[in-house]
Amino acid sequence: MTVGGEQVEGRQPVRELLRAGRRRVHHITVSDSSGESGPLGEIMDLAGAAGVPLRRTDRAQLAHLAVTDAPQGIVARADPLPETPLETLARAPTPFLVVLDGVTDPHNLGAVMRSALSAGATGLVIGRHRSAHLTPAALKAAAGAAEYLPVAVVPGVPAALAALAGAGVWTVAVDTAAPAPLWDLAVATEPLALVLGAEGRGLARLVRQRCELAVTIPLRGPLDSLNVAAAATLACFEVARIRSSTP
Amino acid sequence: MTVGGEQVEGRQPVRELLRAGRRRVHHITVSDSSGESGPLGEIMDLAGAAGVPLRRTDRAQLAHLAVTDAPQGIVARADPLPETPLETLARAPTPFLVVLDGVTDPHNLGAVMRSALSAGATGLVIGRHRSAHLTPAALKAAAGAAEYLPVAVVPGVPAALAALAGAGVWTVAVDTAAPAPLWDLAVATEPLALVLGAEGRGLARLVRQRCELAVTIPLRGPLDSLNVAAAATLACFEVARIRSSTP
Repeated sequence: MTVGGEQVEGRQPVRELLRAGRRRVHHITVSDSSGESGPLGEIMDLAGAAGVPLRRTDRAQLAHLAVTDAPQGIVARADPLPETPLETLARAPTPFLVVLDGVTDPHNLGAVMRSALSAGATGLVIGRHRSAHLTPAALKAAAGAAEYLPVAVVPGVPAALAALAGAGVWTVAVDTAAPAPLWDLAVATEPLALVLGAEGRGLARLVRQRCELAVTIPLRGPLDSLNVAAAATLACFEVARIRSSTP
Repeated sequence: MTVGGEQVEGRQPVRELLRAGRRRVHHITVSDSSGESGPLGEIMDLAGAAGVPLRRTDRAQLAHLAVTDAPQGIVARADPLPETPLETLARAPTPFLVVLDGVTDPHNLGAVMRSALSAGATGLVIGRHRSAHLTPAALKAAAGAAEYLPVAVVPGVPAALAALAGAGVWTVAVDTAAPAPLWDLAVATEPLALVLGAEGRGLARLVRQRCELAVTIPLRGPLDSLNVAAAATLACFEVARIRSSTP
Protein backbone atom coordinates (compact mmCIF):
# COMPACT_ATOMS: atom_id res chain seq x y z
CA MET A 1 0.00 0.00 0.00
CA THR A 2 1.10 3.56 -0.61
CA VAL A 3 0.03 6.91 0.72
CA GLY A 4 0.55 8.94 -2.46
CA GLY A 5 3.16 11.64 -2.65
CA GLU A 6 4.26 11.01 -6.27
CA GLN A 7 4.39 14.71 -7.09
CA VAL A 8 6.59 16.97 -4.98
CA GLU A 9 6.62 20.74 -5.48
CA GLY A 10 8.66 23.53 -3.94
CA ARG A 11 12.31 23.88 -2.99
CA GLN A 12 12.31 22.58 0.56
CA PRO A 13 10.14 19.49 -0.19
CA VAL A 14 12.22 18.57 -3.25
CA ARG A 15 15.50 19.13 -1.41
CA GLU A 16 14.39 16.81 1.42
CA LEU A 17 13.10 14.25 -1.11
CA LEU A 18 16.66 14.06 -2.48
CA ARG A 19 18.42 14.33 0.88
CA ALA A 20 16.34 11.57 2.44
CA GLY A 21 16.90 9.24 -0.52
CA ARG A 22 14.11 6.93 0.64
CA ARG A 23 12.44 6.59 -2.75
CA ARG A 24 13.29 6.67 -6.42
CA VAL A 25 13.00 10.11 -8.05
CA HIS A 26 11.95 9.83 -11.71
CA HIS A 27 12.75 13.32 -12.87
CA ILE A 28 12.82 16.94 -11.75
CA THR A 29 11.49 19.85 -13.80
CA VAL A 30 12.93 23.29 -13.15
CA SER A 31 11.75 26.61 -14.50
CA ASP A 32 14.14 28.39 -16.89
CA SER A 33 13.83 31.54 -14.86
CA SER A 34 15.04 29.92 -11.63
CA GLY A 35 18.53 30.85 -10.55
CA GLU A 36 21.02 28.21 -9.47
CA SER A 37 21.91 29.76 -6.16
CA GLY A 38 20.72 28.82 -2.68
CA PRO A 39 18.46 25.79 -2.25
CA LEU A 40 18.12 25.30 -6.01
CA GLY A 41 21.88 24.94 -6.39
CA GLU A 42 21.89 22.27 -3.70
CA ILE A 43 18.99 20.51 -5.40
CA MET A 44 20.92 20.45 -8.71
CA ASP A 45 23.95 18.97 -6.95
CA LEU A 46 21.92 16.34 -5.13
CA ALA A 47 20.02 15.41 -8.30
CA GLY A 48 23.29 15.15 -10.25
CA ALA A 49 24.86 12.92 -7.60
CA ALA A 50 21.79 10.66 -7.56
CA GLY A 51 21.56 10.49 -11.36
CA VAL A 52 18.09 12.06 -11.44
CA PRO A 53 17.21 13.52 -14.88
CA LEU A 54 16.72 17.29 -14.82
CA ARG A 55 14.39 19.00 -17.29
CA ARG A 56 14.28 22.70 -18.02
CA THR A 57 11.02 24.30 -19.01
CA ASP A 58 9.50 27.76 -19.20
CA ARG A 59 7.56 29.34 -16.39
CA ALA A 60 4.13 28.82 -17.99
CA GLN A 61 4.75 25.12 -18.61
CA LEU A 62 5.95 24.66 -15.04
CA ALA A 63 2.85 26.38 -13.68
CA HIS A 64 0.82 23.98 -15.84
CA LEU A 65 2.61 20.94 -14.36
CA ALA A 66 2.24 22.20 -10.81
CA VAL A 67 -0.77 21.54 -8.61
CA THR A 68 0.07 24.00 -5.84
CA ASP A 69 -0.05 27.78 -6.14
CA ALA A 70 3.63 28.29 -5.40
CA PRO A 71 5.85 25.51 -6.78
CA GLN A 72 8.84 27.90 -6.49
CA GLY A 73 10.03 26.89 -9.94
CA ILE A 74 10.43 23.17 -9.23
CA VAL A 75 8.36 19.99 -9.60
CA ALA A 76 9.60 16.44 -9.00
CA ARG A 77 8.03 13.06 -9.81
CA ALA A 78 8.93 10.12 -7.60
CA ASP A 79 7.81 6.70 -6.46
CA PRO A 80 4.95 7.00 -3.95
CA LEU A 81 5.73 7.20 -0.27
CA PRO A 82 5.54 3.79 1.43
CA GLU A 83 2.84 3.05 3.98
CA THR A 84 3.99 1.76 7.37
CA PRO A 85 1.86 -0.83 9.21
CA LEU A 86 0.35 0.39 12.49
CA GLU A 87 2.00 -2.52 14.34
CA THR A 88 5.41 -1.30 13.19
CA LEU A 89 4.70 2.19 14.55
CA ALA A 90 3.54 0.67 17.85
CA ARG A 91 6.76 -1.35 18.18
CA ALA A 92 9.15 1.63 18.00
CA PRO A 93 11.22 2.28 21.15
CA THR A 94 8.97 4.62 23.18
CA PRO A 95 6.53 5.36 20.34
CA PHE A 96 5.44 8.99 20.03
CA LEU A 97 2.59 8.99 17.55
CA VAL A 98 0.08 11.52 16.25
CA VAL A 99 -3.34 10.25 15.20
CA LEU A 100 -5.49 12.54 13.05
CA ASP A 101 -9.22 11.86 12.89
CA GLY A 102 -10.96 13.36 9.88
CA VAL A 103 -8.52 16.18 9.10
CA THR A 104 -9.46 16.97 5.51
CA ASP A 105 -7.33 20.05 4.80
CA PRO A 106 -4.04 19.01 3.13
CA HIS A 107 -2.32 22.15 4.40
CA ASN A 108 -3.15 21.19 7.97
CA LEU A 109 -2.04 17.58 7.39
CA GLY A 110 1.32 18.78 6.09
CA ALA A 111 1.74 21.34 8.86
CA VAL A 112 1.09 18.63 11.47
CA MET A 113 3.74 16.39 9.88
CA ARG A 114 6.34 19.17 9.89
CA SER A 115 5.83 20.05 13.56
CA ALA A 116 5.46 16.44 14.69
CA LEU A 117 8.73 15.35 13.06
CA SER A 118 10.65 18.27 14.56
CA ALA A 119 9.24 17.49 18.02
CA GLY A 120 10.56 13.94 17.76
CA ALA A 121 7.36 12.11 16.82
CA THR A 122 7.95 8.61 15.46
CA GLY A 123 4.88 8.23 13.28
CA LEU A 124 1.55 9.53 12.02
CA VAL A 125 -1.75 7.63 11.82
CA ILE A 126 -4.54 8.78 9.50
CA GLY A 127 -7.84 7.24 8.45
CA ARG A 128 -8.27 5.92 4.94
CA HIS A 129 -11.56 7.78 4.50
CA ARG A 130 -12.60 11.35 5.36
CA SER A 131 -9.02 12.49 5.63
CA ALA A 132 -6.53 14.48 3.58
CA HIS A 133 -3.88 12.53 1.72
CA LEU A 134 -0.33 13.33 0.72
CA THR A 135 -1.17 15.68 -2.13
CA PRO A 136 1.42 18.15 -3.44
CA ALA A 137 -0.17 20.81 -1.18
CA ALA A 138 0.25 18.57 1.87
CA LEU A 139 3.87 17.78 0.96
CA LYS A 140 4.55 21.49 0.46
CA ALA A 141 3.23 22.36 3.92
CA ALA A 142 5.18 19.42 5.36
CA ALA A 143 8.38 21.07 4.03
CA GLY A 144 10.09 17.71 3.58
CA ALA A 145 8.79 16.03 6.76
CA ALA A 146 6.83 13.52 4.66
CA GLU A 147 10.14 11.98 3.54
CA TYR A 148 11.00 11.01 7.10
CA LEU A 149 7.86 10.59 9.20
CA PRO A 150 6.36 7.07 8.83
CA VAL A 151 2.62 7.10 8.09
CA ALA A 152 0.08 4.36 8.81
CA VAL A 153 -3.26 4.55 7.00
CA VAL A 154 -5.96 2.73 8.95
CA PRO A 155 -9.45 1.64 7.92
CA GLY A 156 -10.91 3.08 11.14
CA VAL A 157 -9.46 5.36 13.80
CA PRO A 158 -11.38 3.84 16.78
CA ALA A 159 -10.08 0.33 15.98
CA ALA A 160 -6.56 1.70 15.57
CA LEU A 161 -6.77 3.33 19.01
CA ALA A 162 -7.86 0.02 20.54
CA ALA A 163 -4.92 -1.70 18.84
CA LEU A 164 -2.48 0.92 20.12
CA ALA A 165 -3.82 0.67 23.67
CA GLY A 166 -3.49 -3.11 23.40
CA ALA A 167 0.15 -2.65 22.42
CA GLY A 168 0.84 -0.56 25.52
CA VAL A 169 0.65 2.85 23.87
CA TRP A 170 -1.25 5.49 25.85
CA THR A 171 -3.96 7.07 23.71
CA VAL A 172 -4.41 10.74 24.61
CA ALA A 173 -7.22 12.87 23.19
CA VAL A 174 -6.31 16.52 22.69
CA ASP A 175 -9.74 18.05 22.87
CA THR A 176 -11.43 21.33 23.76
CA ALA A 177 -13.76 19.57 26.20
CA ALA A 178 -11.18 17.81 28.39
CA PRO A 179 -10.80 18.93 32.01
CA ALA A 180 -7.00 18.46 32.39
CA PRO A 181 -4.61 20.98 30.84
CA LEU A 182 -1.99 19.78 28.36
CA TRP A 183 0.71 20.97 30.77
CA ASP A 184 -0.14 18.12 33.17
CA LEU A 185 0.53 15.34 30.67
CA ALA A 186 1.95 12.75 33.07
CA VAL A 187 2.56 10.04 30.47
CA ALA A 188 4.73 12.13 28.14
CA THR A 189 7.78 9.96 28.67
CA GLU A 190 5.88 6.71 28.06
CA PRO A 191 4.77 5.25 24.72
CA LEU A 192 1.91 7.50 23.61
CA ALA A 193 -0.32 8.60 20.78
CA LEU A 194 -1.77 12.13 20.66
CA VAL A 195 -5.21 12.07 19.05
CA LEU A 196 -6.55 15.20 17.34
CA GLY A 197 -9.80 15.78 15.54
CA ALA A 198 -11.08 17.64 12.55
CA GLU A 199 -10.98 21.38 12.24
CA GLY A 200 -14.27 22.70 13.59
CA ARG A 201 -16.02 19.52 14.64
CA GLY A 202 -13.26 18.28 16.94
CA LEU A 203 -13.03 14.63 17.93
CA ALA A 204 -15.84 12.26 17.03
CA ARG A 205 -17.58 10.88 20.10
CA LEU A 206 -16.49 7.29 19.51
CA VAL A 207 -12.88 8.39 19.02
CA ARG A 208 -12.91 10.44 22.22
CA GLN A 209 -14.41 7.51 24.14
CA ARG A 210 -11.70 5.16 22.89
CA CYS A 211 -8.91 7.42 24.22
CA GLU A 212 -7.61 6.47 27.66
CA LEU A 213 -6.71 10.04 28.61
CA ALA A 214 -7.80 13.49 27.50
CA VAL A 215 -6.11 16.85 27.80
CA THR A 216 -7.07 20.33 26.65
CA ILE A 217 -5.12 23.39 25.64
CA PRO A 218 -6.33 26.21 27.88
CA LEU A 219 -7.44 29.13 25.71
CA ARG A 220 -7.93 32.79 26.54
CA GLY A 221 -10.01 35.28 24.67
CA PRO A 222 -13.19 35.01 22.64
CA LEU A 223 -12.36 32.18 20.22
CA ASP A 224 -13.34 28.63 21.16
CA SER A 225 -10.76 26.58 19.27
CA LEU A 226 -7.28 26.50 17.80
CA ASN A 227 -6.32 25.43 14.31
CA VAL A 228 -5.66 21.65 14.40
CA ALA A 229 -2.05 22.12 13.28
CA ALA A 230 -1.50 24.68 16.05
CA ALA A 231 -3.00 22.27 18.61
CA ALA A 232 -0.85 19.40 17.31
CA THR A 233 2.26 21.57 17.42
CA LEU A 234 1.63 22.51 21.06
CA ALA A 235 0.87 18.93 22.10
CA CYS A 236 3.90 17.47 20.30
CA PHE A 237 6.32 20.03 21.68
CA GLU A 238 4.93 19.60 25.19
CA VAL A 239 5.91 15.93 24.90
CA ALA A 240 9.31 17.00 23.55
CA ARG A 241 9.80 19.49 26.38
CA ILE A 242 8.99 16.93 29.07
CA ARG A 243 11.05 14.18 27.41
CA SER A 244 14.07 16.47 27.10
CA SER A 245 13.92 17.51 30.76
CA THR A 246 13.52 13.93 32.01
CA PRO A 247 16.71 11.92 32.36
CA MET B 1 -4.82 54.55 9.07
CA THR B 2 -6.34 51.16 8.41
CA VAL B 3 -4.96 47.69 7.97
CA GLY B 4 -7.46 46.45 5.37
CA GLY B 5 -9.87 43.68 6.14
CA GLU B 6 -12.86 45.07 4.21
CA GLN B 7 -13.77 41.67 2.77
CA VAL B 8 -14.44 38.80 5.16
CA GLU B 9 -15.08 35.27 3.90
CA GLY B 10 -16.01 32.03 5.65
CA ARG B 11 -18.36 31.20 8.48
CA GLN B 12 -16.10 31.60 11.50
CA PRO B 13 -14.58 34.93 10.37
CA VAL B 14 -18.01 36.41 9.50
CA ARG B 15 -19.55 35.15 12.74
CA GLU B 16 -16.78 36.81 14.78
CA LEU B 17 -17.06 39.99 12.69
CA LEU B 18 -20.69 40.22 13.83
CA ARG B 19 -20.10 39.01 17.39
CA ALA B 20 -17.27 41.47 17.99
CA GLY B 21 -19.29 44.39 16.61
CA ARG B 22 -16.17 46.54 16.37
CA ARG B 23 -16.86 47.85 12.86
CA ARG B 24 -19.77 48.57 10.56
CA VAL B 25 -20.79 45.66 8.32
CA HIS B 26 -22.16 46.91 4.98
CA HIS B 27 -23.78 43.71 3.73
CA ILE B 28 -23.45 39.96 3.77
CA THR B 29 -23.87 37.75 0.72
CA VAL B 30 -24.89 34.15 1.26
CA SER B 31 -25.05 31.35 -1.27
CA ASP B 32 -28.54 30.01 -2.09
CA SER B 33 -27.34 26.49 -1.47
CA SER B 34 -26.21 27.19 2.10
CA GLY B 35 -28.42 25.75 4.82
CA GLU B 36 -29.53 27.85 7.78
CA SER B 37 -28.38 25.49 10.47
CA GLY B 38 -25.25 25.68 12.63
CA PRO B 39 -22.94 28.69 12.31
CA LEU B 40 -24.91 30.08 9.35
CA GLY B 41 -28.09 30.21 11.40
CA GLU B 42 -26.27 32.14 14.10
CA ILE B 43 -24.84 34.49 11.48
CA MET B 44 -28.35 35.17 10.13
CA ASP B 45 -29.58 35.94 13.64
CA LEU B 46 -26.65 38.24 14.44
CA ALA B 47 -26.98 40.03 11.11
CA GLY B 48 -30.72 40.48 11.65
CA ALA B 49 -30.18 41.89 15.15
CA ALA B 50 -27.54 44.32 13.85
CA GLY B 51 -29.63 45.39 10.87
CA VAL B 52 -27.05 44.19 8.34
CA PRO B 53 -28.54 43.66 4.85
CA LEU B 54 -28.40 40.03 3.70
CA ARG B 55 -28.20 39.16 0.00
CA ARG B 56 -28.85 35.76 -1.51
CA THR B 57 -26.99 34.72 -4.61
CA ASP B 58 -26.20 31.54 -6.48
CA ARG B 59 -23.10 29.50 -5.88
CA ALA B 60 -21.31 30.65 -9.05
CA GLN B 61 -21.87 34.31 -8.26
CA LEU B 62 -20.62 33.82 -4.72
CA ALA B 63 -17.49 32.07 -5.96
CA HIS B 64 -16.96 35.07 -8.26
CA LEU B 65 -17.25 37.51 -5.33
CA ALA B 66 -14.92 35.46 -3.14
CA VAL B 67 -11.16 35.83 -3.13
CA THR B 68 -10.36 32.72 -1.09
CA ASP B 69 -10.76 29.12 -2.29
CA ALA B 70 -13.28 28.17 0.35
CA PRO B 71 -15.64 31.02 1.32
CA GLN B 72 -18.04 28.41 2.76
CA GLY B 73 -20.99 30.11 1.10
CA ILE B 74 -20.56 33.51 2.77
CA VAL B 75 -18.87 36.84 2.00
CA ALA B 76 -19.20 40.03 4.06
CA ARG B 77 -18.16 43.62 3.30
CA ALA B 78 -17.29 45.88 6.22
CA ASP B 79 -15.43 49.00 7.23
CA PRO B 80 -11.69 48.34 7.34
CA LEU B 81 -10.09 47.20 10.58
CA PRO B 82 -8.64 50.09 12.58
CA GLU B 83 -4.92 50.42 13.07
CA THR B 84 -3.68 50.76 16.65
CA PRO B 85 -0.67 53.00 17.40
CA LEU B 86 2.40 51.15 18.68
CA GLU B 87 2.45 53.38 21.78
CA THR B 88 -1.05 52.21 22.67
CA LEU B 89 0.05 48.56 22.43
CA ALA B 90 3.08 49.32 24.62
CA ARG B 91 0.88 50.95 27.28
CA ALA B 92 -1.38 47.90 27.87
CA PRO B 93 -1.18 46.37 31.35
CA THR B 94 1.64 43.80 30.99
CA PRO B 95 1.82 43.96 27.19
CA PHE B 96 2.19 40.61 25.43
CA LEU B 97 2.96 41.44 21.81
CA VAL B 98 3.95 39.51 18.71
CA VAL B 99 6.15 41.26 16.16
CA LEU B 100 6.37 39.74 12.68
CA ASP B 101 9.29 40.73 10.48
CA GLY B 102 8.75 40.13 6.78
CA VAL B 103 6.10 37.40 6.99
CA THR B 104 4.63 37.57 3.48
CA ASP B 105 2.24 34.60 3.50
CA PRO B 106 -1.28 35.74 4.46
CA HIS B 107 -2.15 32.26 5.71
CA ASN B 108 0.75 32.40 8.16
CA LEU B 109 -0.18 35.93 9.25
CA GLY B 110 -3.74 34.81 10.00
CA ALA B 111 -2.62 31.64 11.75
CA VAL B 112 -0.30 33.69 14.00
CA MET B 113 -3.18 36.03 14.90
CA ARG B 114 -5.47 33.12 15.81
CA SER B 115 -2.93 31.43 18.08
CA ALA B 116 -1.66 34.68 19.60
CA LEU B 117 -5.14 35.86 20.59
CA SER B 118 -6.00 32.53 22.18
CA ALA B 119 -2.74 32.57 24.14
CA GLY B 120 -3.65 35.96 25.60
CA ALA B 121 -1.53 38.21 23.40
CA THR B 122 -2.53 41.86 23.56
CA GLY B 123 -1.36 43.01 20.12
CA LEU B 124 0.42 42.32 16.85
CA VAL B 125 3.07 44.47 15.17
CA ILE B 126 3.79 44.14 11.44
CA GLY B 127 5.90 46.15 9.03
CA ARG B 128 4.24 48.31 6.41
CA HIS B 129 6.44 46.87 3.65
CA ARG B 130 7.50 43.30 2.83
CA SER B 131 4.71 41.84 4.91
CA ALA B 132 1.35 40.21 4.37
CA HIS B 133 -1.72 42.32 5.03
CA LEU B 134 -5.21 41.50 6.21
CA THR B 135 -6.45 39.99 2.97
CA PRO B 136 -9.51 37.70 2.94
CA ALA B 137 -7.10 34.72 3.08
CA ALA B 138 -5.40 36.11 6.19
CA LEU B 139 -8.76 36.81 7.85
CA LYS B 140 -9.92 33.28 7.00
CA ALA B 141 -6.86 31.73 8.64
CA ALA B 142 -7.31 34.06 11.62
CA ALA B 143 -10.77 32.53 12.13
CA GLY B 144 -12.12 35.74 13.63
CA ALA B 145 -9.04 36.71 15.66
CA ALA B 146 -8.54 39.79 13.48
CA GLU B 147 -11.72 41.29 14.99
CA TYR B 148 -10.17 41.32 18.46
CA LEU B 149 -6.37 41.47 18.26
CA PRO B 150 -5.11 45.08 17.91
CA VAL B 151 -2.60 45.53 15.09
CA ALA B 152 0.08 48.20 14.76
CA VAL B 153 1.61 48.74 11.33
CA VAL B 154 5.09 50.24 11.62
CA PRO B 155 7.34 51.83 9.00
CA GLY B 156 10.32 49.78 10.20
CA VAL B 157 10.58 46.83 12.57
CA PRO B 158 14.02 47.73 14.05
CA ALA B 159 12.81 51.21 15.07
CA ALA B 160 9.65 49.70 16.54
CA LEU B 161 11.75 47.32 18.65
CA ALA B 162 13.80 50.24 19.95
CA ALA B 163 10.59 52.08 20.84
CA LEU B 164 9.20 49.03 22.65
CA ALA B 165 12.42 48.54 24.62
CA GLY B 166 12.32 52.22 25.51
CA ALA B 167 8.78 51.73 26.84
CA GLY B 168 9.94 48.91 29.12
CA VAL B 169 8.80 46.02 26.93
CA TRP B 170 11.29 43.13 26.68
CA THR B 171 12.02 42.35 23.02
CA VAL B 172 12.62 38.62 22.57
CA ALA B 173 13.81 37.13 19.29
CA VAL B 174 12.49 33.64 18.57
CA ASP B 175 15.20 32.39 16.28
CA THR B 176 16.82 29.15 15.16
CA ALA B 177 20.28 30.45 16.05
CA ALA B 178 19.69 31.43 19.69
CA PRO B 179 21.47 29.45 22.41
CA ALA B 180 18.71 29.50 25.09
CA PRO B 181 15.68 27.23 24.75
CA LEU B 182 12.21 28.79 24.73
CA TRP B 183 11.42 26.83 27.89
CA ASP B 184 13.77 29.07 29.91
CA LEU B 185 11.96 32.32 29.08
CA ALA B 186 12.49 34.13 32.36
CA VAL B 187 10.67 37.33 31.38
CA ALA B 188 7.37 35.68 30.43
CA THR B 189 5.45 37.41 33.19
CA GLU B 190 6.86 40.85 32.35
CA PRO B 191 5.86 43.16 29.49
CA LEU B 192 7.26 41.47 26.38
CA ALA B 193 7.24 41.28 22.61
CA LEU B 194 8.03 38.01 20.81
CA VAL B 195 9.79 38.73 17.52
CA LEU B 196 9.58 36.22 14.68
CA GLY B 197 11.03 36.33 11.21
CA ALA B 198 10.10 35.38 7.70
CA GLU B 199 9.50 31.83 6.64
CA GLY B 200 12.82 30.50 5.37
CA ARG B 201 15.11 33.47 5.89
CA GLY B 202 14.42 33.88 9.60
CA LEU B 203 15.14 37.14 11.35
CA ALA B 204 17.02 39.89 9.54
CA ARG B 205 20.37 40.63 11.16
CA LEU B 206 19.42 44.15 12.23
CA VAL B 207 16.19 42.93 13.77
CA ARG B 208 17.97 40.18 15.69
CA GLN B 209 20.55 42.67 16.96
CA ARG B 210 17.84 45.02 18.21
CA CYS B 211 16.24 42.29 20.35
CA GLU B 212 17.36 42.30 23.97
CA LEU B 213 16.91 38.54 24.39
CA ALA B 214 16.83 35.55 22.07
CA VAL B 215 15.39 32.09 22.51
CA THR B 216 15.17 29.09 20.23
CA ILE B 217 12.75 26.21 19.91
CA PRO B 218 14.84 23.04 20.21
CA LEU B 219 14.18 20.83 17.19
CA ARG B 220 14.76 17.13 16.66
CA GLY B 221 15.09 15.32 13.38
CA PRO B 222 16.43 16.36 9.99
CA LEU B 223 14.54 19.61 9.31
CA ASP B 224 16.17 22.88 10.30
CA SER B 225 13.15 25.10 10.91
CA LEU B 226 9.51 25.24 11.90
CA ASN B 227 6.74 27.03 10.08
CA VAL B 228 6.57 30.61 11.44
CA ALA B 229 2.99 30.13 12.65
CA ALA B 230 4.02 26.96 14.49
CA ALA B 231 6.94 28.78 16.11
CA ALA B 232 4.69 31.71 17.09
CA THR B 233 2.11 29.32 18.53
CA LEU B 234 4.72 27.61 20.69
CA ALA B 235 6.25 30.87 21.89
CA CYS B 236 2.88 32.47 22.68
CA PHE B 237 1.58 29.47 24.59
CA GLU B 238 4.83 29.15 26.52
CA VAL B 239 4.19 32.69 27.76
CA ALA B 240 0.56 31.71 28.53
CA ARG B 241 1.67 28.58 30.40
CA ILE B 242 4.16 30.48 32.57
CA ARG B 243 1.75 33.37 33.19
CA SER B 244 -1.04 30.99 34.22
CA SER B 245 1.20 29.12 36.67
CA THR B 246 2.58 32.30 38.26
CA PRO B 247 0.43 33.88 40.97
